[in-house]
Amino acid sequence: MTFEISSVFSKLQMLSTSDHASVVSMNLFVALLCGCIVIGHLLEENRWMNESITALLIGTSTGVIILLFSGGKSSHILVFSEDLFFIYLLPPIIFNAGFQVKKKQFFKNFMTIMLFGAIGTLISCTIITLGATEIFKKLDVGPLELGDYLAIGAIFAATDSVCTLQVLNQDETPLLYSLVFGEGVVNDATSVVLFNAIQSFDLDQIDPTIALHFLGNFLYLFIASTMLGVLTGLLSAYIIKKLYIGRHSTDREVALMMLMAYLSYMLAELSYLSGILTVFFCGIVMSHYTWHNVTESSRITTKHSFATLSFVAEIFIFLYVGMDALDIEKWKFVSDSPGTSVATSSVLLGLILLGRAAFVFPLSFLSNLAKKSPNEKISFRQQVIIWWAGLMRGAVSMALAYNQFTMSGHTSLRCNAIMITSTITVVLFSTVVFGLMTKPLIRLLLPNTAHSKESTITISTDASTPKSFTVPLLGSAQDSEADIDNHDIHRPSSIRALLSTPTHTVHRLWRKFDDAFMRPVFGGRGFVPVEPGSPTERNGHQWR
Amino acid sequence: MTFEISSVFSKLQMLSTSDHASVVSMNLFVALLCGCIVIGHLLEENRWMNESITALLIGTSTGVIILLFSGGKSSHILVFSEDLFFIYLLPPIIFNAGFQVKKKQFFKNFMTIMLFGAIGTLISCTIITLGATEIFKKLDVGPLELGDYLAIGAIFAATDSVCTLQVLNQDETPLLYSLVFGEGVVNDATSVVLFNAIQSFDLDQIDPTIALHFLGNFLYLFIASTMLGVLTGLLSAYIIKKLYIGRHSTDREVALMMLMAYLSYMLAELSYLSGILTVFFCGIVMSHYTWHNVTESSRITTKHSFATLSFVAEIFIFLYVGMDALDIEKWKFVSDSPGTSVATSSVLLGLILLGRAAFVFPLSFLSNLAKKSPNEKISFRQQVIIWWAGLMRGAVSMALAYNQFTMSGHTSLRCNAIMITSTITVVLFSTVVFGLMTKPLIRLLLPNTAHSKESTITISTDASTPKSFTVPLLGSAQDSEADIDNHDIHRPSSIRALLSTPTHTVHRLWRKFDDAFMRPVFGGRGFVPVEPGSPTERNGHQWR
Repeated sequence: MTFEISSVFSKLQMLSTSDHASVVSMNLFVALLCGCIVIGHLLEENRWMNESITALLIGTSTGVIILLFSGGKSSHILVFSEDLFFIYLLPPIIFNAGFQVKKKQFFKNFMTIMLFGAIGTLISCTIITLGATEIFKKLDVGPLELGDYLAIGAIFAATDSVCTLQVLNQDETPLLYSLVFGEGVVNDATSVVLFNAIQSFDLDQIDPTIALHFLGNFLYLFIASTMLGVLTGLLSAYIIKKLYIGRHSTDREVALMMLMAYLSYMLAELSYLSGILTVFFCGIVMSHYTWHNVTESSRITTKHSFATLSFVAEIFIFLYVGMDALDIEKWKFVSDSPGTSVATSSVLLGLILLGRAAFVFPLSFLSNLAKKSPNEKISFRQQVIIWWAGLMRGAVSMALAYNQFTMSGHTSLRCNAIMITSTITVVLFSTVVFGLMTKPLIRLLLPNTAHSKESTITISTDASTPKSFTVPLLGSAQDSEADIDNHDIHRPSSIRALLSTPTHTVHRLWRKFDDAFMRPVFGGRGFVPVEPGSPTERNGHQWR
Repeated sequence: MTFEISSVFSKLQMLSTSDHASVVSMNLFVALLCGCIVIGHLLEENRWMNESITALLIGTSTGVIILLFSGGKSSHILVFSEDLFFIYLLPPIIFNAGFQVKKKQFFKNFMTIMLFGAIGTLISCTIITLGATEIFKKLDVGPLELGDYLAIGAIFAATDSVCTLQVLNQDETPLLYSLVFGEGVVNDATSVVLFNAIQSFDLDQIDPTIALHFLGNFLYLFIASTMLGVLTGLLSAYIIKKLYIGRHSTDREVALMMLMAYLSYMLAELSYLSGILTVFFCGIVMSHYTWHNVTESSRITTKHSFATLSFVAEIFIFLYVGMDALDIEKWKFVSDSPGTSVATSSVLLGLILLGRAAFVFPLSFLSNLAKKSPNEKISFRQQVIIWWAGLMRGAVSMALAYNQFTMSGHTSLRCNAIMITSTITVVLFSTVVFGLMTKPLIRLLLPNTAHSKESTITISTDASTPKSFTVPLLGSAQDSEADIDNHDIHRPSSIRALLSTPTHTVHRLWRKFDDAFMRPVFGGRGFVPVEPGSPTERNGHQWR
């Protein structure tokens, strides 16, 4: 009798205390997140560090401590879960990026972003796959197959948009930010199409229709994902405007915006579309319409809480990657042949550098051909920064590598263990070294940007054409002098007009359409004349 | 070769689309949450409905639809998880309650709350256990043991603080709100002690030291949990004030407040304390100190985002409970003997009514003995409302019942199935019927409260003593006339003075201490003279 009662109550007690091991690890994680935030604050004025590097280093140090305490058994306390990453951590980050992005800057560079994101990723993937196939055979890495090499290409062609958000500042370098970040978003769609295409087509029977089919697939995926995001955003704007939700409760408005943004991501995943693209465009539409339909306190709340969620998710990812890096199991194969592992990592880093250079410079040249004024062109110095800022590989690469080379988090084959450790090395090295050097590089190549933050806001408020957005960035004397080699290429003005007119016409037509049809239905204000109430601008003027 | 490649990419595709079934269920849940919010908005002015009943009904309807579509197999799409409930959904609700609670009202009624929460729960648990033991034997429910009966007592003695938050309005009935909600919070600590005590002591050897031991345990748990919450709150205030986090980033402040609040809950769970008590007091301290140390936009953001998180978590719980209610597996035993099930549910509902009446009225009488002025006493009409508003049983009861009577969500024994279905019936019936009748009951018994919202805020702003908070509630002529039976009991004034002096002295000492030592270190403002910047008040004046 006594035994039965005590078993009953031990069950009830278990319930109230939950699984103790998971409670311990959650405590540790939450405490580390707090630590990262405080340390990040203290290092804010440091010109080298950024929050992701801090989190990565804290994660690694904690990994060392756990390793010592557990007697060399394990360095991490949570098993890496792709679900956790793709379902919970990534959506807030990408949504917030869309919500806070400077819309004019993004759409002005739309074609360039598409070039980089779609064609560029293909080029980079091809080069990494070919390079790895050639070199790894000589390095005696192990029995890797064609599928593995294609996967390596895909894994290391994935520009990590999370890292980009950390090293580039939207206010200081708006053009670079929109190009590199936009590329990262489009990147995802390209990868999904790439995988689907290779899976559904027989690689032995290569004929011209495959390319056409591939193109069709890509267009379908891109358009469908974008439309889904736009429609969800518009629906939220319509509901909040029509029903005037804020009349009764601010909390309902905020909850509805959060839930509908998340719904757009989940709907895209449900339809096998690119959730990242969908939630990004949902963020853009929400900041253009929905955000203006809610009450003043909801505006402040949504702006800051979306940013906070995204901020915490980013730190969480880097903390985890740092902590997981030292997991002893993966390194035991490496200790037998340290040379191979170092060589593999170096080769991969080299291929990443090469693969990215192979598309940034040619595609920038192509993109410059379409630009009318010298101010709108991507200067050589800026191309170098675009090349450099997209070199970092992060949690997306880790997630893909884990999926390809492990079975539920464990590695049994030597070649798989080497690939995992090489991925970790590349992620750590690229984030820390490339990341640390990005801020100084921007300061070196574009010395005026750090001070032009104020003037960007002032000028953009007064200006009525999208062009003026780039003036503070490109208008400095040094820049113009340095870019003579690019700017002096004279082309027939008719071609320039032909290439540049559609963008301007589309923009004018859009503004007319927005004023006449969209805004009366979906609310929103500020696209005409210059978005006085956009989340980012209001931040600078009033709420910081 | 082709096979291997396609398997590689099917893996990669699986990664990008995640587990499709869970994506479907998440879509449905998020869409239903949006639906609940919109419908809740449309029904806002309805005098009967509230958001939890809406969510419960929508959940039940969805359950019916899923049941039809799945061919009668299952009505729910997520398996009820106690972790989900206790680790993710409950903390934001309780933290927000502490964050938004009217602190003076709460501490003024502290002794009454402790009486209700500790002694009251014990009385209620004893009555339900004894009643169930007697009656269930006659009903032929099945082979239940003493442990089961004790668990039934604990399950149905648990006042659901989430429901209470929904039916009682802090602005309209501050005294009732703080009493019933405070009781629910203390309730949790009592339950944990109860389980621990019975587990660790041999029930066969009952001697006087057990009671003493039990009392010691309860005091330790209560004091330790409270201190942990207070210390975490103070630490957050100190860090944010000392380092002036808001200087660089608003997001860091918001993130730090959220993470430290959650950390307090997890630390309590780690130390086997009552997380609910801890996070509640952490919320109180944060609203008193930390909230005043952050920037203006962080204040608005935290206030609304905590409220939104709590709001969404509440709707989620009710939606789930409604959806789970129709799960066919549990009902198949019941269909054999519908009479027994109806009788069991009715008996339990009756015992809940009786058990609550058995401590509300006697303990209110005791509490009134300690009050000096007639205005501070709990009138008979208010006692009826306290009794009624605490009758609802919700997700806590469900979680406890699932833990006691099922093995990983499934029931195999007939008596267990009957207990689960009875719990569901009691939860649905008490929430819908008792919940629907609470608002009209308050209107019937206290007709003036709905209009006194404005004056509450005005008077509390001018007043300098805690007493005046209750004036708008109790000061109306009708109330005073109706409560003559209570108020006319004259006791020697020396006893009244003896009983009431400590509270006032403690309050004065606390204010001195707060001004002299606490506020210079931990920041915060507003306790003197009357909290002009408390989250709730600012809401009424400026931000709604």
